[in-house]
Amino acid sequence: MAAARHAVYLQIEERMLFWIHTYGFIVDISSSVRVYKIGFQVNRMKWLNHDILMVPGPSEPYQEVLAELSRPVLPHYGLKWKEIYEDTRDGLQKIFETEEEVIIVPGCGNSGLELAVANLVEKDDKILVVYDGFFADYFKELVEAYGGTAVLASAPYGKAVKPRQIREVVDEVGGIKGIISAHNETLAGVKHDLVGIGKIAEEFDLFNIVDAISSFGGMKIDMDRWGIDICIGYASKSLGGVNGITPVAISSRVWDDIAERQSVVHSRFLDLNLWKKTIDEWSSWGHPFPVSQPTSVIVALRKAVEIALEEGLKERYKRHSICKEVVREAVRALHLEPFVADEDDASETVTSIELPEELLASNVTSILKEDFNIIMGTMGLLGINGLRISHMALTASPHYIIPAIFALEGSLRKLGWKVEDGKAVKTAAEAFYRYT
Amino acid sequence: MAAARHAVYLQIEERMLFWIHTYGFIVDISSSVRVYKIGFQVNRMKWLNHDILMVPGPSEPYQEVLAELSRPVLPHYGLKWKEIYEDTRDGLQKIFETEEEVIIVPGCGNSGLELAVANLVEKDDKILVVYDGFFADYFKELVEAYGGTAVLASAPYGKAVKPRQIREVVDEVGGIKGIISAHNETLAGVKHDLVGIGKIAEEFDLFNIVDAISSFGGMKIDMDRWGIDICIGYASKSLGGVNGITPVAISSRVWDDIAERQSVVHSRFLDLNLWKKTIDEWSSWGHPFPVSQPTSVIVALRKAVEIALEEGLKERYKRHSICKEVVREAVRALHLEPFVADEDDASETVTSIELPEELLASNVTSILKEDFNIIMGTMGLLGINGLRISHMALTASPHYIIPAIFALEGSLRKLGWKVEDGKAVKTAAEAFYRYT
Repeated sequence: MAAARHAVYLQIEERMLFWIHTYGFIVDISSSVRVYKIGFQVNRMKWLNHDILMVPGPSEPYQEVLAELSRPVLPHYGLKWKEIYEDTRDGLQKIFETEEEVIIVPGCGNSGLELAVANLVEKDDKILVVYDGFFADYFKELVEAYGGTAVLASAPYGKAVKPRQIREVVDEVGGIKGIISAHNETLAGVKHDLVGIGKIAEEFDLFNIVDAISSFGGMKIDMDRWGIDICIGYASKSLGGVNGITPVAISSRVWDDIAERQSVVHSRFLDLNLWKKTIDEWSSWGHPFPVSQPTSVIVALRKAVEIALEEGLKERYKRHSICKEVVREAVRALHLEPFVADEDDASETVTSIELPEELLASNVTSILKEDFNIIMGTMGLLGINGLRISHMALTASPHYIIPAIFALEGSLRKLGWKVEDGKAVKTAAEAFYRYT
Repeated sequence: MAAARHAVYLQIEERMLFWIHTYGFIVDISSSVRVYKIGFQVNRMKWLNHDILMVPGPSEPYQEVLAELSRPVLPHYGLKWKEIYEDTRDGLQKIFETEEEVIIVPGCGNSGLELAVANLVEKDDKILVVYDGFFADYFKELVEAYGGTAVLASAPYGKAVKPRQIREVVDEVGGIKGIISAHNETLAGVKHDLVGIGKIAEEFDLFNIVDAISSFGGMKIDMDRWGIDICIGYASKSLGGVNGITPVAISSRVWDDIAERQSVVHSRFLDLNLWKKTIDEWSSWGHPFPVSQPTSVIVALRKAVEIALEEGLKERYKRHSICKEVVREAVRALHLEPFVADEDDASETVTSIELPEELLASNVTSILKEDFNIIMGTMGLLGINGLRISHMALTASPHYIIPAIFALEGSLRKLGWKVEDGKAVKTAAEAFYRYT
């Protein structure tokens, strides 16, 4: 049985496995219409009326955030809106730890990344991509789409690219204009040393672009001290808001650079010069953006920001950090290993596990969903039979982690994996007591 | 008093007036920090606890749409999501009246326009812009941002650009690749003859891009019969949904063209070849898009689509058309004139009025808001002391139009404009009876 399942696993494309949070089916990529029902009939004990999101986005939103969404819609201008927008922006600045300008891009996270590249990269500009997996491929393609050349500094999956490696590449290649890195890479669950990267950017006078999409609100970002030029945050991951907009912080060095830009920016709604013009001219009546804004989604963001600041950023980051430790201990109590071996490289908001051959990740996620109403992610994109547990915003709490570990233990148990009943939950509980 | 107010009006930039829905203040553009409190102290009779949106976006959303937003968040993949997404897309296809592919761009309306231009326009391509005011300027700049040349076919403000003018320009200039037009221009309240434009596109084998952002759900669009190649819809205008995503319908001719494209598309998240790849490979597991989607906003869109289809498109368009006639009659009963004189050119979803010198639009909108909780728009961008009444989705109904006309009458009355008490409301009521 296990061998048969593994055979199915080997047939499917790496890319597919990552995305599949399974629901008991796997797509055969050799034909996009065939869908294999794999695994076995699970007992459908529907304990909850909805599924808990323990994937690295979307995350569980705060109840208060959802409540905000159902309020009457506001126009995206005027005195009332001005106050709400500025309030949101001020709060976002606090989370970015910056005194620089923060804008809210009315688009997906990738549009925020694209804004950075569209404005900073001109034809043949060399950009160093901190290359750590799937999303780094996206950075590379993005730099190339805007006419630049991507120079890579790589590490094996599950390890962070170290600042000294980046330094070596910058030094050897020469003529590099900027660095793009992901603060927190959600596939392997790897975090990067932004302090170290910032120092290199400063030393070589490079623009420093940071994708903080999955860390924003869950891991410390100190934009100004760490020398970040464009920092892309997010609403529906570690902040506990909802998807639909992307906060981006932009240093004055960037504003100066783009004012001097030689070539046209291949975009209008992402053109920072246009944003600058509207910030300068239209802020006074509450419209410091060149396009319309989804006000409902921003009102929800404001609530998530408010909740984060009320909790206190220091406390909040500590909470995520503790959850990381607890989850790693609990994983080991299940006789499994966190994919990221090095503690320093491991993310505070998502923990990846490479499962042994006997356990097929998609079977585990299937039982987690069907029996326990918990959505966890698989990680086939890296070619690994991997499982991801995310602990972000609301779910970075014993209220979610303890039952999630119980559910994981129960799922593995059902698949014949030898675990001592209740040991992982006990381990998680003990770890929580120890760390708090 | 009237003269003094008019003097203030003359001082401010055209662009500002358009956007100002006033709130009793006007920004002096010579200094972005000074804000003039103009007009007079209004009696603040707060009859409602929120303001009614009678601007051309955001519009009043359906209660059921807002309720959907507060439901638990779903991940943007998996069988449950697949069903919701496909349902939404199928419904959108019905509103576009197309059998072609419909995608949902996770961004503002301008990102939808940008997707069209980014993919279809290569360096030095000539694109005819149906030039009818502020938003056409945006089209022009957009074409240029992507390396194209904008060729204009213009009409004076308040008149539609006629198909024969477009035909002449296409014929004279030669070598044009495509046409971009706005179905419904919300500043002047002008609509364009998409049937006529479609025929020219067909005759000269041009790509036909239509911005249907403000008409979508309120005015008939027949994409396939009218020969539209890329049609950009919207959620939070005539459909009565909420802002945050942009539905776009794309003809197979476009998919073929971009597959053969010579130069790189200067975008990743808007690159249709990437969308095509994910539609082909990832549809089966509910992820036919290359980026994450704001699921809450799409669930809300689905509800708005469902409401529109339940009402019936024919009935719905008739309702908007009747509201246009009623509003135009009521405006005349106020001794004012609709800005668009020609009935055929006038929009079904927004009616603009050019106010006489004695009435300052920003004063009118200020009283409308303060005394009557109704938000209407001014229209300074065209250099006109104009007022806009939008009748979209929910507000295209006597339940909103009758009180809005009452409020407008009351506001004008307060400003000393000679109107017979109740006459405009009576006129509106009579017109509703006559047309229904």
